[in-house]
Amino acid sequence: MAAHSVSPLAPSQYPELPAIAGLQLAAGHTGMRYKGRNDVVLMAFDRGTTAAGLFTRSTMPGAPVEWCRKILPRGAARALVVNAGIANVFTGKAGQQAVKTTADGAARALGCRSNEVYLASTGVIGQILPAEKIVAQLPKLKAALSGTSWMDAARAIMTTDTFPKLATATCEIDGKTVTINGICKGSGMIAPDMATMLAFIATDAKLPANTLQALLKSANNQSFNCLTVDGDTSTSDTVLLFATGKAGNTPYEKATDRRLADFRRALVQVMAELAQLIARDGEGAQKLVTIRVTGAKNDTSARIIARAIANSPLVKTAIAGADANWGRIVMAVGKTAEPADRDRLVIRIGGKPVTARGMVRPDHDEAFATKHFRGRDVRIDVDVAVGKGAATVWTCDLTHGYIDINADYRS
Amino acid sequence: MAAHSVSPLAPSQYPELPAIAGLQLAAGHTGMRYKGRNDVVLMAFDRGTTAAGLFTRSTMPGAPVEWCRKILPRGAARALVVNAGIANVFTGKAGQQAVKTTADGAARALGCRSNEVYLASTGVIGQILPAEKIVAQLPKLKAALSGTSWMDAARAIMTTDTFPKLATATCEIDGKTVTINGICKGSGMIAPDMATMLAFIATDAKLPANTLQALLKSANNQSFNCLTVDGDTSTSDTVLLFATGKAGNTPYEKATDRRLADFRRALVQVMAELAQLIARDGEGAQKLVTIRVTGAKNDTSARIIARAIANSPLVKTAIAGADANWGRIVMAVGKTAEPADRDRLVIRIGGKPVTARGMVRPDHDEAFATKHFRGRDVRIDVDVAVGKGAATVWTCDLTHGYIDINADYRS
Repeated sequence: MAAHSVSPLAPSQYPELPAIAGLQLAAGHTGMRYKGRNDVVLMAFDRGTTAAGLFTRSTMPGAPVEWCRKILPRGAARALVVNAGIANVFTGKAGQQAVKTTADGAARALGCRSNEVYLASTGVIGQILPAEKIVAQLPKLKAALSGTSWMDAARAIMTTDTFPKLATATCEIDGKTVTINGICKGSGMIAPDMATMLAFIATDAKLPANTLQALLKSANNQSFNCLTVDGDTSTSDTVLLFATGKAGNTPYEKATDRRLADFRRALVQVMAELAQLIARDGEGAQKLVTIRVTGAKNDTSARIIARAIANSPLVKTAIAGADANWGRIVMAVGKTAEPADRDRLVIRIGGKPVTARGMVRPDHDEAFATKHFRGRDVRIDVDVAVGKGAATVWTCDLTHGYIDINADYRS
Repeated sequence: MAAHSVSPLAPSQYPELPAIAGLQLAAGHTGMRYKGRNDVVLMAFDRGTTAAGLFTRSTMPGAPVEWCRKILPRGAARALVVNAGIANVFTGKAGQQAVKTTADGAARALGCRSNEVYLASTGVIGQILPAEKIVAQLPKLKAALSGTSWMDAARAIMTTDTFPKLATATCEIDGKTVTINGICKGSGMIAPDMATMLAFIATDAKLPANTLQALLKSANNQSFNCLTVDGDTSTSDTVLLFATGKAGNTPYEKATDRRLADFRRALVQVMAELAQLIARDGEGAQKLVTIRVTGAKNDTSARIIARAIANSPLVKTAIAGADANWGRIVMAVGKTAEPADRDRLVIRIGGKPVTARGMVRPDHDEAFATKHFRGRDVRIDVDVAVGKGAATVWTCDLTHGYIDINADYRS
């Protein structure tokens, strides 16, 4: 696979993630697909760590996703093993065996149970994971564990990603300072319903597993589910959230408890930052596109419309070409069949209204819209004028780079 | 707008369409957008011609679509006016006025009622149709009417099309020979639910309007609704079928009447040929892709899965790059959430099975699959192993050409 130059939308600097008490991590090299770079991550959690997870809705999930789904009800985590290069998807019984071998190996290395070991794999579909290559690295990974190897880990899980993705935030519960760190990967096969990607978030907050799950689900709707690159949903989508419980806060049981408000805000902040980093690294992306739909029948309808605009190849290529062809936005709204009032529809490009009364405004400033589409940050607002539903979706443009990357991914 | 070179999938020769008794047509030039080519078509029908029509499901339909929907219940047609270059979509009251001006002009020119004049427009969204430019050409068009100007008409309705699209067939009703001719245009903004395009079909059969409508709807499900280029549904999709009644057959009232079996077959043949021509002219297309899904819960489910494969940017770019990355087909099946048995799924590329028991077959011939993807006609079969539903969808690959064309459509 050819290396691709770093996205022009990459952040100019990366945050330094602080250590999280009760969590250590390390990155290493199995050589299963990539040369000269790390491709495997081990995270180790202290006893008492709770876990929450969300997974792809694909009916063709990979073996690691099935494994995580199986152990999640236990709600306890002692380890996470992630590899990049081979996704271990559509690999039948051999894939299940590879998962078991990896989990057993990590359990032996760390002295825990196999069903406390979370797994995620990303890369080519249809190849069986050479689990023995991962297991062989576990002693070295264990020896290298440290509290601060977040950047190494973020780099090791990359596939077609052109930059590592990290975010961090602090908040308070009961006056105790709580930290939330997250890393993720993803740049193609990215669509909502678990924006296709792997994301691993960890906090030192003390929270029961059920509460953590509810918090994750809610934050996911305001972050990764607002993301689409190409409308293609992966078989491996995984978001995991681990809570080591070392912050010493009261473990409130109700996810909606107002004493968790600051934690909820910080969790959304970290996850939304990560989601936007994925849009910024969308395969071939030259522009980050934020689409806000308002006035829909309800929030679900607004999201369907926003996604239709975000996934439309005609809208995405128009943005790539800086052709402010707003007619294609009309087309994309129309094709969803979601309620929308054609004759009261308001499209805004870069904040300036383009349409009124079912046609282009006489004062529409085409030059302004074109200039806005030429920039790195494109903003499209659409009010469909039938209700109060609203949604935001992040995406990127569709360029020659996407085709370059994807016409030849496996070579 | 730049001219694009003719698709490599264009037919090597075009059929010569015979005259249809009771129908005359002519092409002309308004100059509203294109230089040096025709851009308007007039068809005139003898008294007694019945009409059937199917239109976009977009909630943002163009003014011509609304006009046709309004007059269709009358079921009678005396004229059709089609223009290319400006779609008269999202043009508010001015767009409605343009439609009325055109219909009134044609009615005056041909001595019929305005509500017997069908209209269709294709091209840029958001610009008001300069109807007076069409009306000014009507006397010249009327004078030029002939029974055999089908090729001229097929060329005049092209936009980003790189070749004209025509098909013809004969059949028998009651031992009388019946002819069916069709022309269409379309190469981008093409998706099912009225594959985005204009198609005009005419026959000399004698058939009541209601019967004609039922026949059209059924044939459409086996032709244009099997077509997708980019998943983007247009605001202007229109398929019209006119029957002049000159063949002298008995006008059977029941669309399912077995005495109409040969007519139904021929109608599907003409419409399926036209639909495949659109796929062959998909913007940037280098390959015609036929996707057949079997073993689905029902036919609807099979079509959803087939469309998901056909519209997946990752599948389409893999085909463009002749990378037989069948894992992306697994991904596309999975993302629909339609019932499918991962562990019994059978994918065939070029007829050869690739998968069995939830993984790649040990005898999978990657070199054969790659060679097949290098060809002009790509065939993908997927059995999802849960039922008896089946569907076929035609599409094309996603290439740099698509982006070249669409990043700069309006300039």
